[in-house]
Amino acid sequence: MAQNHLWGNGLEAGMDKLEQIKASLQKFADDRDWDQFHSPKNLSMALSVEASELVECFQWLTEEQSQNLAPEQLSAVKDEMADVQIYLLRLATKLNVNMVEAVNQKIEKNALKYPADKVKGSSKKYTAYGKESQTDSEK
Amino acid sequence: MAQNHLWGNGLEAGMDKLEQIKASLQKFADDRDWDQFHSPKNLSMALSVEASELVECFQWLTEEQSQNLAPEQLSAVKDEMADVQIYLLRLATKLNVNMVEAVNQKIEKNALKYPADKVKGSSKKYTAYGKESQTDSEK
Amino acid sequence: MAQNHLWGNGLEAGMDKLEQIKASLQKFADDRDWDQFHSPKNLSMALSVEASELVECFQWLTEEQSQNLAPEQLSAVKDEMADVQIYLLRLATKLNVNMVEAVNQKIEKNALKYPADKVKGSSKKYTAYGKESQTDSEK
Amino acid sequence: MAQNHLWGNGLEAGMDKLEQIKASLQKFADDRDWDQFHSPKNLSMALSVEASELVECFQWLTEEQSQNLAPEQLSAVKDEMADVQIYLLRLATKLNVNMVEAVNQKIEKNALKYPADKVKGSSKKYTAYGKESQTDSEK
Repeated sequence: MAQNHLWGNGLEAGMDKLEQIKASLQKFADDRDWDQFHSPKNLSMALSVEASELVECFQWLTEEQSQNLAPEQLSAVKDEMADVQIYLLRLATKLNVNMVEAVNQKIEKNALKYPADKVKGSSKKYTAYGKESQTDSEK
Repeated sequence: MAQNHLWGNGLEAGMDKLEQIKASLQKFADDRDWDQFHSPKNLSMALSVEASELVECFQWLTEEQSQNLAPEQLSAVKDEMADVQIYLLRLATKLNVNMVEAVNQKIEKNALKYPADKVKGSSKKYTAYGKESQTDSEK
Repeated sequence: MAQNHLWGNGLEAGMDKLEQIKASLQKFADDRDWDQFHSPKNLSMALSVEASELVECFQWLTEEQSQNLAPEQLSAVKDEMADVQIYLLRLATKLNVNMVEAVNQKIEKNALKYPADKVKGSSKKYTAYGKESQTDSEK
Repeated sequence: MAQNHLWGNGLEAGMDKLEQIKASLQKFADDRDWDQFHSPKNLSMALSVEASELVECFQWLTEEQSQNLAPEQLSAVKDEMADVQIYLLRLATKLNVNMVEAVNQKIEKNALKYPADKVKGSSKKYTAYGKESQTDSEK
């Protein structure tokens, strides 16, 4: 993967920023001899913990209040979002997953699971439309 | 922000791939009239649900097994990682958060909370080292 | 439901301890005018946050270390387990759910989904054995 | 602990129903040779996954809709609540934790962290009132 070609085509250039962050995170862990704790199993746990700290920011707010956060609230939310992103990138490094590819593939799968003409305006889970075996609920 | 300048400097070019995905996700939601469900509160819930579906992939595996996933296991893990990334980007769109900036700021904060010389090899939470008021456990 | 018949039959007597705790929790919320925040949606969020604080206790431990917790670790785990139980009981109050009944019904459903002779020693999700539509993985 | 004394005093009788369920759950696991997967670390993961399946029931509902669930929605919610309770009791068995005691102790701690006269009507986290070191947000 082109690490330092910042002027490459869109796809490679887009990968560079993420690759730089992944490299910083690997160094961060190595400097602290923390890699030993970073099994994918443990990283998935840490990621879910941060996702819940993000939920905690909103648990007593109404949906409307969540649209109008005070500066200190938004700042706390940003930190938790960053924490989730950080663990996601650590896990991507460990499992050699290309996040941009994975996301684009998933968006395509979601388009098939939820055809716009069939699901417009409804929050029903896709299993309510037809028989499928996956467990996700995309919206 | 430079939407279509794929040959811009590293920072802007890195932002473009994420911006493209965010735009696809907004269109996906608009086509299905789903934006009404996308309050930040709801998006944080959906994100945490996907983070747990990722945990579910690993819950009965040993740490070693999690390092050696079979192809179908890795495929399921990739899908859940993508789902987490998708909701994180939707939330970033709604709250106008620049994920690359937020992550870089958080890495700096973490370096201060966990100075390498002090924490090397230990998984202790930073609060065990000194008196602080945040609730996160970074590693 | 028999509130104060502590000498009733097993089923009713078993319900009393839980009913007493549920009554304490309602009073706790009323004294603080917090009931306004306790929609089932919000309570589910708070419960999941506590469940993740429980996960956080174990995220960097090996499975073996998790079997041999130091006193202060066990104390922290107990507190988080209590927090999960508390929100579960608040939600049960709000939705008028009888937890003992719900659990016994679910154990029966699980026995059907996972017949002992078919699943012995395997951690495979029930969907790997046959075609079903639920999303849970019981073990 | 008095297993079959269904006519004992309130505290022991209250424990019996929970003890009976815990015994059923142990047998359920033993019949399937699943105990090997039930390290506290793994059980905490499974519990958090079920807590998120509970959140999933509510993620696209408004708070008001969550107060008025349709029968099939309530049925799904009950199942997930039961799943959370089941894993909580498995973990209590493994760690020898008395849930009734743990809950009563935590309610006392919460009363100290959130004195009614100070916090009435406010959803602020206790750390916003004073300097403390715990990470929970009780409400």
